[in-house]
Amino acid sequence: MEIELYQRVLAANDIVADENREILNRRRLLTVNIIGSPGAGKTSLICQTLAGLRVPCAVIEGDIASDFDARKIAALGVPVIQINTGGSCHLNAVSVAAALDKLALEDGILLVENVGNLICPASFDLGEDFKVVVASVAEGGDKPYKYPAVFQQAKAVVINKIDLLAQVDFDRDFFQAGVRALNPQAVIFPLSCKTGVGIGGWSTWLQEQWQTKFRKLFS
Amino acid sequence: MEIELYQRVLAANDIVADENREILNRRRLLTVNIIGSPGAGKTSLICQTLAGLRVPCAVIEGDIASDFDARKIAALGVPVIQINTGGSCHLNAVSVAAALDKLALEDGILLVENVGNLICPASFDLGEDFKVVVASVAEGGDKPYKYPAVFQQAKAVVINKIDLLAQVDFDRDFFQAGVRALNPQAVIFPLSCKTGVGIGGWSTWLQEQWQTKFRKLFS
Repeated sequence: MEIELYQRVLAANDIVADENREILNRRRLLTVNIIGSPGAGKTSLICQTLAGLRVPCAVIEGDIASDFDARKIAALGVPVIQINTGGSCHLNAVSVAAALDKLALEDGILLVENVGNLICPASFDLGEDFKVVVASVAEGGDKPYKYPAVFQQAKAVVINKIDLLAQVDFDRDFFQAGVRALNPQAVIFPLSCKTGVGIGGWSTWLQEQWQTKFRKLFS
Repeated sequence: MEIELYQRVLAANDIVADENREILNRRRLLTVNIIGSPGAGKTSLICQTLAGLRVPCAVIEGDIASDFDARKIAALGVPVIQINTGGSCHLNAVSVAAALDKLALEDGILLVENVGNLICPASFDLGEDFKVVVASVAEGGDKPYKYPAVFQQAKAVVINKIDLLAQVDFDRDFFQAGVRALNPQAVIFPLSCKTGVGIGGWSTWLQEQWQTKFRKLFS
């Protein structure tokens, strides 16, 4: 019975996610659902990305509690809405719909930082264009094998904190083989939000996704 | 309705958890529910702990998928049961009850590694004596503020990977103040599973918890 109700919750979520997608397309926004473990560097990646993009941006910040992350984004002068899930381990389409009502952005990129969790966010479509997983080298190379669903669904995988590579046991070939086995199309970006190495390639790719979608919407 | 059913699931879980607790007490086991983000170092902590303890031990390994962690434990010659949750983001009392049937251990310490997740495992009692949170300095100092429930419930908090302190931005005072505000009684163990620094104090404390419980059970 737990499973049956869970499927009904997911089905209800999907209806709202489709509505979100229509709204986002009408507002000519590319929306990215950013998923990763606590401390993988999701907020740092967003801050670095915002600094490099030449496209209007806004951010939705998902957290169980606190507004630390939203304050970091606001300090950059970028519109941000904080969603506190109050215990729930993932964002859902309804909470994102409410946040969209409060954001005026059009013609740009909407970055959504999900709750720090490699598991539950994979099951809830928010209406995004695609998901990006952020994993840190400090977490170890076995994460794609242990948390397959989210890696299977991601359009891109960011390997963050490569500045720590000399200090941690991270087998990059093993990690990448795990991603490839689940998801041969995923683009992998090794980078460091701390030093900035690799941020350029990631930001360029993201901007290209926006341009591609934008052309498609108007062709 | 989602909330109502969730509460019924939790209530059903609690009944089995109480049964587990009775079985564990009858078998004179101290049971520790070890919770942390993916890659915080839960398995490394268990391996280091097993090497130092002079008490019979067994391990239950919880993962969505894979048996990497169980194989690491088995390589140490310690009895281990792998639970694959197949998607579920936490262990529950029923899966632990099934694992207990397969473990012969009496008079010792049972270490249960929960699924890598700082959120959902906090809601599900397994019948353990207490919870321990493992957080890595690479995750940053704000985790107690962002994931309060699990820090509130922990008897001990392990700050792992202190060998990385010079390379990462981790404000230990801020982290500890966050733990203290939620949970003034929690014992905090900064340590490194890689270098072994701090493992002795943690292992001694754990063995004392076992001795204290053991005396209580027979007094």
